[in-house]
Amino acid sequence: MSHHVVIIGGGFGGLAAARALRRKDGIRVTLIDRENYHLFQPLLYQVASGGLSPANIAYPLRTIFKKHKNVSVLLGEVVDIDLDSRCVILANGAGAGGAGGEESDGDSSENRVPYDSLILAAGAVNHYFGNEAWEKVAPGLKTIEDAKAIRRRIFLSFERAERENDEARRSALCTFVVVGAGATGVELAGAIREIAVHTLREEFRRIQPDNARVLLVEHADRVLPPYDAKLSGCAEKSLRKMGVEVWTGAKVTALHDDRVEIEKDGKRECIETENVLWAAGIAASPLAGMLAGKTGTKLARGGRFPVESDLTIPGHPEVFAIGDMTHLMRENDKLVPGVAPAAMQQGEFAAKVIEARVREREAPARFKYIDRGSMATIGRAAAVAEIGKLRFDGYPAWLAWLFLHVMMLVTFQNRILVLVQWAWNYLSWSRSARLITRDGRPGAE
Amino acid sequence: MSHHVVIIGGGFGGLAAARALRRKDGIRVTLIDRENYHLFQPLLYQVASGGLSPANIAYPLRTIFKKHKNVSVLLGEVVDIDLDSRCVILANGAGAGGAGGEESDGDSSENRVPYDSLILAAGAVNHYFGNEAWEKVAPGLKTIEDAKAIRRRIFLSFERAERENDEARRSALCTFVVVGAGATGVELAGAIREIAVHTLREEFRRIQPDNARVLLVEHADRVLPPYDAKLSGCAEKSLRKMGVEVWTGAKVTALHDDRVEIEKDGKRECIETENVLWAAGIAASPLAGMLAGKTGTKLARGGRFPVESDLTIPGHPEVFAIGDMTHLMRENDKLVPGVAPAAMQQGEFAAKVIEARVREREAPARFKYIDRGSMATIGRAAAVAEIGKLRFDGYPAWLAWLFLHVMMLVTFQNRILVLVQWAWNYLSWSRSARLITRDGRPGAE
Repeated sequence: MSHHVVIIGGGFGGLAAARALRRKDGIRVTLIDRENYHLFQPLLYQVASGGLSPANIAYPLRTIFKKHKNVSVLLGEVVDIDLDSRCVILANGAGAGGAGGEESDGDSSENRVPYDSLILAAGAVNHYFGNEAWEKVAPGLKTIEDAKAIRRRIFLSFERAERENDEARRSALCTFVVVGAGATGVELAGAIREIAVHTLREEFRRIQPDNARVLLVEHADRVLPPYDAKLSGCAEKSLRKMGVEVWTGAKVTALHDDRVEIEKDGKRECIETENVLWAAGIAASPLAGMLAGKTGTKLARGGRFPVESDLTIPGHPEVFAIGDMTHLMRENDKLVPGVAPAAMQQGEFAAKVIEARVREREAPARFKYIDRGSMATIGRAAAVAEIGKLRFDGYPAWLAWLFLHVMMLVTFQNRILVLVQWAWNYLSWSRSARLITRDGRPGAE
Repeated sequence: MSHHVVIIGGGFGGLAAARALRRKDGIRVTLIDRENYHLFQPLLYQVASGGLSPANIAYPLRTIFKKHKNVSVLLGEVVDIDLDSRCVILANGAGAGGAGGEESDGDSSENRVPYDSLILAAGAVNHYFGNEAWEKVAPGLKTIEDAKAIRRRIFLSFERAERENDEARRSALCTFVVVGAGATGVELAGAIREIAVHTLREEFRRIQPDNARVLLVEHADRVLPPYDAKLSGCAEKSLRKMGVEVWTGAKVTALHDDRVEIEKDGKRECIETENVLWAAGIAASPLAGMLAGKTGTKLARGGRFPVESDLTIPGHPEVFAIGDMTHLMRENDKLVPGVAPAAMQQGEFAAKVIEARVREREAPARFKYIDRGSMATIGRAAAVAEIGKLRFDGYPAWLAWLFLHVMMLVTFQNRILVLVQWAWNYLSWSRSARLITRDGRPGAE
């Protein structure tokens, strides 16, 4: 009987683990995800800003593993994990993510998935620091659905402004507040200004889209806080040049349907807007909390689960947790960052340990994160990058960013299509994927 | 003061009218649509079957007219037309198509749009022949949202089957019933078999997708009833070769969540399935009915408005109605068909009449439909075409279909991207746009 590895989550970490275990004799893998696709999250802001279609950055998990007969893919939502009997319990029906009536399937489905080894790679969700009601007003950007909601909001605002006679309301409709100046916030703010200044140029008859106001609000004293201070300065300069108002040392204190209150330098400002986008924080998947309850572990900041140095959970060497849902200190007393390369390295590490155990070889004892650098893009042909000791910005950083992200896209097809789309966008300033589609249409299934 | 032409609907008819009036001195145009894009409906089945992304077949209306300063685009839903004071009345707020809270905008929006000439081109909606409750069970295929709902249904069914232990339920999940064997029904049925046999090949571990049963149910005695009988025969043969069960002379008598009842040759059959797709009929937009009430006109079959031979409505020479919402006999006592070329010719005709009146020249008195032929595709490299006296099928017809549809796509960009996508799909049998996304996600706006 082969060793059965169950992987929860088809993000960067889970995918890397499954790939490392494909074609391995004596091991079979079941990859469970709530979605039927792997999402290339670093480009999600491109969908939110109408530059790419969802299918350009999402690829069916089944297709990735079709040739690897020892890998099965299951569409399902994990509701419980029985650590003692080594079983993952799924919600009834496939695709339980909330689509309503279709999910109540009776109990004939295969709901218990037993495992020999388990890799938890469930990722992170948007986090509102105790103000969860803000989610409705200020959508975050973690899923395809989030991206489409933001896209709808941005483009619908300009449409509504075009029909609005009241000047104050018109300017409120053309005001966008992005909360959080990490990579996602910086990318979003830059993209919205590009839409306003270039994409929508000449398209409206009553409003001037390039008058749109874009505020980037950041609690820390500079944008891109995890980066080198000099690069933060470059990024801020690029943002200002594009017309983004950068408010550092500022904090959102209240969020309403039609306005946001911001505290800056001890003063309260009230901005009238219906367009607040949330890029201020993420927290670990709720599975981290469930695991903590079962193992009597105290969660770390952001609800992250503190794993052992070999990525296992206390008392269960057969259970690994990796990626954004975990908390792990490096030898230099810095955290392993919540980025795709870290999750991928962890997935590969867990796979290596499991294979070593199955082969009864010595397993590596300690996960070591190799920092290959990080980069963020600010807009057309502007970016910042840190690679080893190297710090650079502007066009070279943007080219590096572009090259790296296109290369990382999973499939040949997506690479080519995304390149064609980008080449076109770059030459024409257009964003053709800016459909205002309706989620939650009445009468839809 | 320039002559103001208001066009309701940015489909093929409305778009053709607006294009014919762009850059015309002394005329300004306002194009009103509920969506911010023109939808290339003939390829909607490609979105429903995961071959293309929505943005590949939808193009922002504003972009189409950005260079034509005499054309304005308004996103809005028409709720009334005041024929006496010559005013179109819009619902409050832009994008009133049903997205909930955002729409109640107060009344400061520009809700009354006065016109000198009006062109109604509101198209058609799905029609269930008095069984409107069936819409929930059997989605039609008229909008992007419809296409995504069908895509979700098809791919989710296979996922659920993979998790299902009960054999009867598993085979119900892998049974698809397409109602109506017009062009849309034939295309959908063919596409589903292709998905089952080729696209999903090797991707599942427990089920055999190529065992999926696809039934095409048609009330008439042959598929593609408007076509030449010989071509119908070719199409049916192609469908059967692909593994589609063709049931002609058959009628749906009841539709439930988990089964459909079909009457054929006096016998009642009950098919267990949760996948019924509706391609059996469309009816005119409700605006046709509103117009009928205001003018005391009796609607024709399918709720279509019977227009005068110059496409105007009785008693109002300044109001034109065109395309799928209208009913018009040709000189040969045949109907002008509800196809894109007819709507486009009508839009151009209405524009010509309006311009002639503005210039005080003689206007053409009677619309004449020029039938340039029709074609339908059945699957990979199979189609039927009628062009003049010419009838052909198979690969040449498919090439003609492909060429014509790519050429008809509005913009340069979409043509190239769609070609690349299709070339890839053709070579690889893949369908990468098969995301199971969630409409109606709880917590979405």
